[in-house]
Amino acid sequence: MSGSPASQAGMRRQNLALVLRTIATHGPLSRAAVATRTGLTRAAVSSLVDDLRGRALLAELGPEPATGRVGRPGSALALSAEGPAGLGLDIGVEHVAACVADLRGEIRVTVREEAANRDSPPERTLPQLVAVARRAVEEAAGLGLRPVGAVVAVPGSVADGVVVRAPNLGWQGVPLQVLLREQLNDQLGDLPVSVENEANLGALAELWCGDGPQDFVHVSAEAGIGAALVVGGRLFRGARGFAGELGHVPVHPDGPACACGARGCLEQYAGERAVLRAAGTWGRESGDRIGELARLAEAGEEAALAALERAGTAMGIALAGAVNLIDPAAVVLGGAYAELAEWLLPGLRRELAARVQVRPWEAGAVVVAALGRRGPRVGAALVTVRRVLEDPVGVAAGV
Amino acid sequence: MSGSPASQAGMRRQNLALVLRTIATHGPLSRAAVATRTGLTRAAVSSLVDDLRGRALLAELGPEPATGRVGRPGSALALSAEGPAGLGLDIGVEHVAACVADLRGEIRVTVREEAANRDSPPERTLPQLVAVARRAVEEAAGLGLRPVGAVVAVPGSVADGVVVRAPNLGWQGVPLQVLLREQLNDQLGDLPVSVENEANLGALAELWCGDGPQDFVHVSAEAGIGAALVVGGRLFRGARGFAGELGHVPVHPDGPACACGARGCLEQYAGERAVLRAAGTWGRESGDRIGELARLAEAGEEAALAALERAGTAMGIALAGAVNLIDPAAVVLGGAYAELAEWLLPGLRRELAARVQVRPWEAGAVVVAALGRRGPRVGAALVTVRRVLEDPVGVAAGV
Repeated sequence: MSGSPASQAGMRRQNLALVLRTIATHGPLSRAAVATRTGLTRAAVSSLVDDLRGRALLAELGPEPATGRVGRPGSALALSAEGPAGLGLDIGVEHVAACVADLRGEIRVTVREEAANRDSPPERTLPQLVAVARRAVEEAAGLGLRPVGAVVAVPGSVADGVVVRAPNLGWQGVPLQVLLREQLNDQLGDLPVSVENEANLGALAELWCGDGPQDFVHVSAEAGIGAALVVGGRLFRGARGFAGELGHVPVHPDGPACACGARGCLEQYAGERAVLRAAGTWGRESGDRIGELARLAEAGEEAALAALERAGTAMGIALAGAVNLIDPAAVVLGGAYAELAEWLLPGLRRELAARVQVRPWEAGAVVVAALGRRGPRVGAALVTVRRVLEDPVGVAAGV
Repeated sequence: MSGSPASQAGMRRQNLALVLRTIATHGPLSRAAVATRTGLTRAAVSSLVDDLRGRALLAELGPEPATGRVGRPGSALALSAEGPAGLGLDIGVEHVAACVADLRGEIRVTVREEAANRDSPPERTLPQLVAVARRAVEEAAGLGLRPVGAVVAVPGSVADGVVVRAPNLGWQGVPLQVLLREQLNDQLGDLPVSVENEANLGALAELWCGDGPQDFVHVSAEAGIGAALVVGGRLFRGARGFAGELGHVPVHPDGPACACGARGCLEQYAGERAVLRAAGTWGRESGDRIGELARLAEAGEEAALAALERAGTAMGIALAGAVNLIDPAAVVLGGAYAELAEWLLPGLRRELAARVQVRPWEAGAVVVAALGRRGPRVGAALVTVRRVLEDPVGVAAGV
């Protein structure tokens, strides 16, 4: 087959990806430096770079500073701040949001709106989500960015584009990928859509944006408590794709009844509703209940402090089981609870220190996510960006 | 480099492995059938087969029945029942054992002795282990089998040949690989030795001997309770190599103090000592306490039944957390507790059914290991057998 048109096209596609990845990892780079790093000829690199610039994937930064070498200074190439981009969507219990990341991984546009999504059917939630998506895409267009894929973060378990179970939205068996593609495409043209659990996306965002460990448990909480397991730099999904249900790990097996039907699950101690009830703030009107709770704790309000201590302890008990089972290098506290870390971490760390079997389990192995509650939508936007970098021809062309 | 002697030797080594694996998977096969399956020429296959027979890795079974085809019937080749073999060793709290597996994976020799290893220093345990190993190797020699590697199963956490912690033996930081190699080699000549957690080896034995799922949690219990996670047909070891500490997953966080320093760990409800105490049989002299407990349960003795119900329930609570986190396709009950399955499974299955978040969690997804308490030493012996099949030249020659 070698030399046939099909394999030549395949090889060019691979080389385009190679040049793009090389510049993404090591750039800005001159054409000569790309040739050196990739082993491709300078002529081949020039042709591939022209192609990538034509697709708006690369930008030319202008002449490099003179280096004392003989010859014309090369012009530095970098990932484009315009052109193909990733659209990240986020359905929370109390908000919908959209953001757009450029190829460099920078979030250039964010649109977020309060929403009453608790027990709200998809027919009510989706139009609002599509509206923020459209606003984000319009703003992005003004910056020269054109999303080539959308990923939506949902607080629930997902399989093959279907939300199997999102208890806090009241969703069960919702074919979100199909529904959203239909509504988005009415407004935005043909855009591939995929659906992913929010904890998984939050974990990927931490993995991709930071330089932390490649093996960690990422805990995130908004209405529910989810976790994502990252193993060897990849998501660990489990046999059915439902790994990471930390919120329903039993903490006190005879404890309060949980919405899931069992008793004493972690969510009954550390879920948002449980914490706010214990703090006495549940039912108060507030756009940002977690922010409000942090302010009360900051002010030394006793019920708030006690509720957070109890939640941190329960999280530590559940995570001690997780660490004993999975032996990760770190536990990352993400999502909205990153903002409560100051009050959650003491109990959480204490239980881990007491219960993790193979010691020492360093207190420093529990860290706070850098992205906090933005994590899931940032991760959602970056999924598409990474797909483009891996296969610029296929993804940008919608293959 | 192609065509150099080094790469020719490397290619021959790979082809020897290819022929051996092909016969292991699809055999008995004639030389002609091996050539067809591997794509090697018949002349090459003949030469490789001669080499493998010279190393006693293959046996010739005699002429195949005539198939109606023209020509001389081929002679069928199969893995040898003599020659290179695997030595599996097993240190339990109340026994030491050794077994030898031939290349076909059959256990041909087993030597097992009662031993008082609870809180016994390695200086007392190892000579007894080495003695059973020597007897097993002598018996194997009578069958024409020659172990080319030894693997020892220990009830504790292992890293780089060192037993980091084996609470029921009272070992901490014991450099078992070095100690055992020295003593074994005095008696048996130069034999590579490796050390592995018993739960891991029990899980590998189930994986290799059965045709069950490739993703499961394998629970085994003797004095302690351990688990091994098998993911995609491979052991999941965790970042530090200590994954699977199910025995110290918190079940009732305020429960009885555990030897590990924490409270309410699974071992306090379902560990051998806890179960026998609850059944009222702890301290009675018995060579086989688990067998005795099974007899009492069989006879309907109430304390025994209640102790097993409590243990099964606690195992179900801890495993519900594990299933929620890891989402395996099955839970396998192995080790000595496989013999107690009849009384453990009802509580265990009930808790899983109630607490696993993403349902249905099939009751049938909890299965009993076929090998039971033989699992760890069978797995230990098979590790070497599989190494030989993967690289017959390197392993059998001690490379």
